[in-house]
Amino acid sequence: MKKSNAPGAPGGDEKPYSSDGAGAPARKINPDLTIAEIKHGVRPGDVYVRMRQPHSHIFRKVGPGHFVATPASDVPTSSWERGYRLLKKILVGRPLETAEEIHQRLNKVKSLAVFGSDAISSSAYATEAALIVLVAAGNGALGIVFYTSIAIAVMLSIIAFSYRQTVYAYPHGGGSYNVSRENLGTLPGLIAASALLIDYVLTVAVSIVAGSAAVISALLASGYAEQIEALEAAMPAFLNLNVVLSLFFIGLITLGNLRGIRESGTIFAIPTYLFIVSLSVMLLGGLFKAFTGTLHPVTPPPLLPIVEPLGAWLILRAFSAGAVAMSGTEAISNGVPAFQKPESHNAATTLTVMATLLGAFFLGVSFLATRMGLVPGQETIISQVALAVFGASLPYYIFQIATTGILVIAANTAFVDFPRLSSVLARDNFMPHQFLFRGDRLAFSTGIFALGGIAALLVIAFEGSVDSLIHLYAVGVFLAFTLSNSGMVVHWWKLRGPNWQTSLVINGVGASLSVITLAIVAVTKFALGAWIVIVLIPIITSLFLFVHTHYSRVAEQLRIVPTQLPPKKIDQLVVVPIDDVNYASLRAMAFARTISSDVVVLHISTNVERTEKAKEKMRAYAPDLKMIVVDSPLRAFVRPLLAYVDAVHSQHPNAFVTIVLPEFITAHWWESFLHNRTAARLRSAFERHPNVAVVLVPYLLER
Amino acid sequence: MKKSNAPGAPGGDEKPYSSDGAGAPARKINPDLTIAEIKHGVRPGDVYVRMRQPHSHIFRKVGPGHFVATPASDVPTSSWERGYRLLKKILVGRPLETAEEIHQRLNKVKSLAVFGSDAISSSAYATEAALIVLVAAGNGALGIVFYTSIAIAVMLSIIAFSYRQTVYAYPHGGGSYNVSRENLGTLPGLIAASALLIDYVLTVAVSIVAGSAAVISALLASGYAEQIEALEAAMPAFLNLNVVLSLFFIGLITLGNLRGIRESGTIFAIPTYLFIVSLSVMLLGGLFKAFTGTLHPVTPPPLLPIVEPLGAWLILRAFSAGAVAMSGTEAISNGVPAFQKPESHNAATTLTVMATLLGAFFLGVSFLATRMGLVPGQETIISQVALAVFGASLPYYIFQIATTGILVIAANTAFVDFPRLSSVLARDNFMPHQFLFRGDRLAFSTGIFALGGIAALLVIAFEGSVDSLIHLYAVGVFLAFTLSNSGMVVHWWKLRGPNWQTSLVINGVGASLSVITLAIVAVTKFALGAWIVIVLIPIITSLFLFVHTHYSRVAEQLRIVPTQLPPKKIDQLVVVPIDDVNYASLRAMAFARTISSDVVVLHISTNVERTEKAKEKMRAYAPDLKMIVVDSPLRAFVRPLLAYVDAVHSQHPNAFVTIVLPEFITAHWWESFLHNRTAARLRSAFERHPNVAVVLVPYLLER
Repeated sequence: MKKSNAPGAPGGDEKPYSSDGAGAPARKINPDLTIAEIKHGVRPGDVYVRMRQPHSHIFRKVGPGHFVATPASDVPTSSWERGYRLLKKILVGRPLETAEEIHQRLNKVKSLAVFGSDAISSSAYATEAALIVLVAAGNGALGIVFYTSIAIAVMLSIIAFSYRQTVYAYPHGGGSYNVSRENLGTLPGLIAASALLIDYVLTVAVSIVAGSAAVISALLASGYAEQIEALEAAMPAFLNLNVVLSLFFIGLITLGNLRGIRESGTIFAIPTYLFIVSLSVMLLGGLFKAFTGTLHPVTPPPLLPIVEPLGAWLILRAFSAGAVAMSGTEAISNGVPAFQKPESHNAATTLTVMATLLGAFFLGVSFLATRMGLVPGQETIISQVALAVFGASLPYYIFQIATTGILVIAANTAFVDFPRLSSVLARDNFMPHQFLFRGDRLAFSTGIFALGGIAALLVIAFEGSVDSLIHLYAVGVFLAFTLSNSGMVVHWWKLRGPNWQTSLVINGVGASLSVITLAIVAVTKFALGAWIVIVLIPIITSLFLFVHTHYSRVAEQLRIVPTQLPPKKIDQLVVVPIDDVNYASLRAMAFARTISSDVVVLHISTNVERTEKAKEKMRAYAPDLKMIVVDSPLRAFVRPLLAYVDAVHSQHPNAFVTIVLPEFITAHWWESFLHNRTAARLRSAFERHPNVAVVLVPYLLER
Repeated sequence: MKKSNAPGAPGGDEKPYSSDGAGAPARKINPDLTIAEIKHGVRPGDVYVRMRQPHSHIFRKVGPGHFVATPASDVPTSSWERGYRLLKKILVGRPLETAEEIHQRLNKVKSLAVFGSDAISSSAYATEAALIVLVAAGNGALGIVFYTSIAIAVMLSIIAFSYRQTVYAYPHGGGSYNVSRENLGTLPGLIAASALLIDYVLTVAVSIVAGSAAVISALLASGYAEQIEALEAAMPAFLNLNVVLSLFFIGLITLGNLRGIRESGTIFAIPTYLFIVSLSVMLLGGLFKAFTGTLHPVTPPPLLPIVEPLGAWLILRAFSAGAVAMSGTEAISNGVPAFQKPESHNAATTLTVMATLLGAFFLGVSFLATRMGLVPGQETIISQVALAVFGASLPYYIFQIATTGILVIAANTAFVDFPRLSSVLARDNFMPHQFLFRGDRLAFSTGIFALGGIAALLVIAFEGSVDSLIHLYAVGVFLAFTLSNSGMVVHWWKLRGPNWQTSLVINGVGASLSVITLAIVAVTKFALGAWIVIVLIPIITSLFLFVHTHYSRVAEQLRIVPTQLPPKKIDQLVVVPIDDVNYASLRAMAFARTISSDVVVLHISTNVERTEKAKEKMRAYAPDLKMIVVDSPLRAFVRPLLAYVDAVHSQHPNAFVTIVLPEFITAHWWESFLHNRTAARLRSAFERHPNVAVVLVPYLLER
């Protein structure tokens, strides 16, 4: 093959770079882009052919030295990347410019759907959670659930009332982290934040698993029990239908949030209101049937053996289990700025409506379930109630669809709150700054991925069981309630505005009730799984503090102190390690000459003949450069080079050593196996040297 | 924390690098090492503390600009590395200097052990391989083995005779690759090389598996059958005791060869001569017993059902199976230079002795086995014979140990030849140059690792069964014989020295017999596994050619053409991308100023406030540098930078762009997760640009 097509072709112009001739002085390059002047800068035959269009398409000039990168700057270069981009576009949508962000305000109807679905949807599983505890005491004990439900509903109204205060006091968003940090200090704020993050993950896991359970209940009610069993038998041991469905839903919501659906309230309004309406109809129908004496379970509840006598412990445990109904109550206080004006007033009203609906639904379901003496089984309690009211008719299926819908939407609340709280924590340097990163659709993608991933792992680990997951749930909820309400107490105490005593009392009662409930929940659920959360909260809090310390130290080390500026220029020695003198090493030497007048060509010798040849070539082609030979009897390359640089530093402690190395870039990736990894090894060897930089001068192998 | 301990501490001297003061001109640095002048170059408190001793310990000056790196240059820097080095030293031994290589010559006694163990050890399994084929035709057919053995022994003597010719004609090493390439052309040479490499791998696998089988036979003879069964039941399904033992032996030999035991003939002499002596004693004892009529199998051979009538096909297959006895015959022709003078004569004598021993042993074992009508089973045939001769007495166990020993040593022959042939192929640019690399002990470590690894995989894939592996074996052996002998025929024809006709006839007969055997082996074993080798040989040969083409192209592209030298200096633009102006970015700017007068500071803007702050700081701290702002509406960083560099290239097609970027090096690796990977992403984005270099100016975070 003739050399004329190789990069080392005749005439400097076809070389990857060149000046007018060997040894000619370097030309000045204008770094500013002379838009519209240049048409086609690259001639055919040049190595570098990507840029065929004038760059005025790519950069719009907006001022001297100021350009805007147009979407044309964002064209993928490889077919791999093109495919990836296309897939991403289909799944997530076209990338949005920062300026395209919309701050949509939600009216009360939509905001109830966006912020209330989490709380309201709890009514779909809270009764069942309490019943499962009481099963141990036999059928007769199940009725207790109605009374624990009343206690929880009372609690709920007090907590909701206390959050109304927060909504007015913090119109810019009164999340537990904010309120606790501002009033109680950083540490309580971070504890609240850890509790909240754990809670959001559990909200996703529990809601999604409960939503999938609703689907499976509907399938069971339609007589698909055998098919489900056969399907599950065919799955790997760690999966079941509920896990598979849940993972599908989590994937769907993750994707939806990456698309940035978070504030499009309409999507959420449909299932939320469908659930509100159909549950209301169901409850009214059920109450009517109950009072006319025609309410009967479709399959008579099984007779339960009495394993444990009904005692205070069991009742407390049932109360703890049912208390998950209250999760999500704080969501509105986080989102006040998203409401239409007057924000606080609208938010407070929505909060009241939400709490009322939740309380009524929870009590209603508990009443009907205990009235019929229903026993939790593979079919959910709420499905059993609906079946008893509607029969296996269209309304029943609509109700099941609505239940699944609102539970999935409830998970979405966490997908709004988790990334937002993470980004706030990242902004405050308590979480990695990656959580501030906004993806193609302006969503905080890191937080969304993290939440989806952790929730998915949790669903798999807990085998898609609401019952197991729910034990972890309430600790975080009530810890956040406690800290937030205590913060509000301090707030009122410090502020002493009009009626501060009343407000203080309300939040004080809220805080006291929360802390009592927290204690009950922590104790009764400890062994069942709450210990995991109790262990995790201090760990996560410590991680927050660790991250904060790191970022503070970095900021301190990077801060410019005007009296301690770095020198304008540095004392530099350029080292060009060569094995052989060839076209690539001559290019590296040219680069070295360009950047410094202090250049040394270093030859690590493992073979005398090779060294003599290299010396001879140096005399012929680069007689101006000093050459140093270091014999390496152990045939090592990197270590003698390290030792040489060390020795230079021992002579000149302030010297900065720049190592210039030609790097072969093969035409195809698999060809790189035919070359040793010297460049990469050198780079990693010098990575931790504060005054050594490694420059790889690329040498593209054409073929 | 006060800033005084941070790198940005008062006084330039404690900075990672500095000059006498901001803006002072850079100082000249002497790259030569002024040995013995400097005592302690680094003051306490300096960031850079590794080099505390004068470097005269580390480099010995041998001339102007010429140093020798002493072992002190090779001190590990981290505790990880210290541990790794220690482990390596324990396993492989202290590193050897290149000058320490010894070229030991072997006397005939040792060379028979080094080069002959492969061939001689075949007698331990060849008879069995043939018997297994004949089992299908019932007990009566087993006697045929003796006659096929005679045929093979005749073949062996002819091939050995023909190789004696090669030994005289190629005193510098007449491996099949050399002989074929020189006389028949590159392609036949490469085909021979592929066949040989495959053969070496199979030699290791077959010998080691047979050696392990000898250990297990001894255990079975001692009554450990139950224990072995229990042990195997406890192993994962893909393992059995034979596989585990084989992997252990392969690991041992690999390690031994990395230590560089290859020429220490004494180690090999012991098991080889122990085998020769004990097998001779056993055969003599067996013959005596046979003729006195006292030779009886310990357990009477089972009665075999006749599955297939005895026909020509079965006999040919038995012949093919037994032909593996001839593997290793060519080893001496490879190793002529290792013999004492006169090399060729000594090698030829050794070859004759080896072939005679092998032939006698093979015939003797076949005779005794057929005489007793032994049937192959879990216990090897040779073990059954020895048991019949010696009984379960000490001589039997010595014999089993010797068998295992020589089989393991036989595998070692391949560990000598495979790396040597690979290094020759790498030197000739047919294999990756990594195979030329010599490890700490001067052994070709890449080849040793490759051979050990592939052989281990093969043993696992074939479940440690000699019977399955052996089907792959003979094709490569006879292909190499054929090519080598054909090459010799051409050699004599061209050379026409004295008695060339005789030599030509001998090699011609050898070639003819080899090609006939090759055809028989390929056809009879095709479906049993030989097809794998028949498919692999052209694939490997193509890979050789592909590698050769690549290296030739690279060499062509790197060759210096004196009339087409690269320019002495290049047209360079230095781009410093900054996000914020801080101490680290000011250092990067200082670096950029030092290496060029054409510096542009590029700020990719995603946030207007941030940009304004950066502009302001630039005015304050680096007013001499041109700043360009590129707005990135899609919040991308790398792509607009790529596009900017493209645009610069479209204006100045010959410009070389150097991107200078500060890189944070965190104090602990896990802290790096708290920083984004901009530097790494940038490096990979620009990797394939021929005229862009990315310089990462390290900024070490102290804490």
